[in-house]
Amino acid sequence: MEYMRGDCRASIGVFDSGVGGLTVAREIMRNLPKEHIVYFGDTARVPYGSKSKDTIVRYSQQIIHFLRTQEVKAIVIACNTASALALDEVEKELDIPIIGVIRPGARVAVTSTSNRRIGVIGTESTINSHMYKKLIYEQDPSITVYEKACPLFCPLVEEGWLKDPVTKEVARRYLDELLNKDIDSLILGCTHYPLLRSLIRELVGDSITLVNPAYETAKELGELLEREGLANPDMPEEPLTAEPYRFFVSDMADKFGSFANSILPYDIETIQKINIEEY
Amino acid sequence: MEYMRGDCRASIGVFDSGVGGLTVAREIMRNLPKEHIVYFGDTARVPYGSKSKDTIVRYSQQIIHFLRTQEVKAIVIACNTASALALDEVEKELDIPIIGVIRPGARVAVTSTSNRRIGVIGTESTINSHMYKKLIYEQDPSITVYEKACPLFCPLVEEGWLKDPVTKEVARRYLDELLNKDIDSLILGCTHYPLLRSLIRELVGDSITLVNPAYETAKELGELLEREGLANPDMPEEPLTAEPYRFFVSDMADKFGSFANSILPYDIETIQKINIEEY
Repeated sequence: MEYMRGDCRASIGVFDSGVGGLTVAREIMRNLPKEHIVYFGDTARVPYGSKSKDTIVRYSQQIIHFLRTQEVKAIVIACNTASALALDEVEKELDIPIIGVIRPGARVAVTSTSNRRIGVIGTESTINSHMYKKLIYEQDPSITVYEKACPLFCPLVEEGWLKDPVTKEVARRYLDELLNKDIDSLILGCTHYPLLRSLIRELVGDSITLVNPAYETAKELGELLEREGLANPDMPEEPLTAEPYRFFVSDMADKFGSFANSILPYDIETIQKINIEEY
Repeated sequence: MEYMRGDCRASIGVFDSGVGGLTVAREIMRNLPKEHIVYFGDTARVPYGSKSKDTIVRYSQQIIHFLRTQEVKAIVIACNTASALALDEVEKELDIPIIGVIRPGARVAVTSTSNRRIGVIGTESTINSHMYKKLIYEQDPSITVYEKACPLFCPLVEEGWLKDPVTKEVARRYLDELLNKDIDSLILGCTHYPLLRSLIRELVGDSITLVNPAYETAKELGELLEREGLANPDMPEEPLTAEPYRFFVSDMADKFGSFANSILPYDIETIQKINIEEY
């Protein structure tokens, strides 16, 4: 099957440093069931959250080159760190639409806060970029944003300790500082963190809105596709002529598969491993 | 200054996925003060402990290519994961000596155990390779080896929580299983773990010998250099004509520097960042 640039039947390219972006892919599957997805997880170089802008820009460029070989019509950076550090750079070079998760997350947080005090948690690199803070200020400079890096959350999620007392103690340590600031909204600024939602909910209580940028990103993607005339008009055919969701990784396809099967609403059958450094 | 292959005044190349290998470099500095060192930390692709053999072999090959451009006379893989997964592969292609940390660690554990029950802790990839177990069995098949992956130890060390109650609870969780096996020696099979030595000591008590392969590796390196006629006969000159220790990383030179300065017995002045994917 051949696709022209701008073909509305082409796939959406979605990428992340690893498995976390599957929480975004899941929202796209739920909210835009007509869209096909090509997912790439950079499991050979994961995590991104402790790395520099230069490195994350280079990695993102390689991944976008790879996704272009799959004839995607639009790209979603389903990783907060890469959205924070690389989106502005890679956007300039692209002739198809690309969106990250930070702008949608910032937008919904602005509409959700009543007392204009918002907390943001994320990786070290995301927090040090202050990207959520900047985008929130652009929309409403009267809002105060409190930021906190939570570097142990990703390893704890990958260890599967989602409801563990250790994870709760770590979360208490990280979140205490934000809770003392009387925030009423908390952005889960890393795609792994929605998997800790119920534990975080227990700690912060019911009065704080937890903002998951994944849902808003899927919504914003839908609007973008409609606006650009790129939305797929057809549901995937039955019997399927092509797999609607395809998965690629740079390493450890098996481990990715079992993690993916615990997150996604269906079981992945094939995951292809590629050498991303060649792109 | 030009070096011939086999020049005893050339440097030792030492590499790791990041900062952990500095615990090995430190032992080489202490025990072989005449030797110059070129250290490389692969901070753009850290950690290695959750990645596959293929990937670790490819990364190790690139690093060795880079170290060869620095005219090293011998190479130390100061990373348990790369020693476990890549040493056998890269050794075949090399015409200078190369050693890892696992063989020395296994050797000293065999001499240290009285009841022939040894525990090994390490990253997921190191433990899944069963390399310590294999090398110990080769020396003494009557020894029983109990292995346990501790994937949260590295992130906890990098977060600086070396004596934290959270780290102690995580360690208790990981080590309980081994302690129930009545081991009398425990190999710290990741170069980060010596930084948790005092916390681990508190948990395991005084009757268990903690084996740190770093010290044995420096000793084995010294013997190897003597045997091959490669030991540097001269102390570094004062005033120095060349820096005796040089540091390279693939990312985040500043962060590496502050970590290094907390581990090494002197302050590093310059750290050069290189693009390791080009090698």
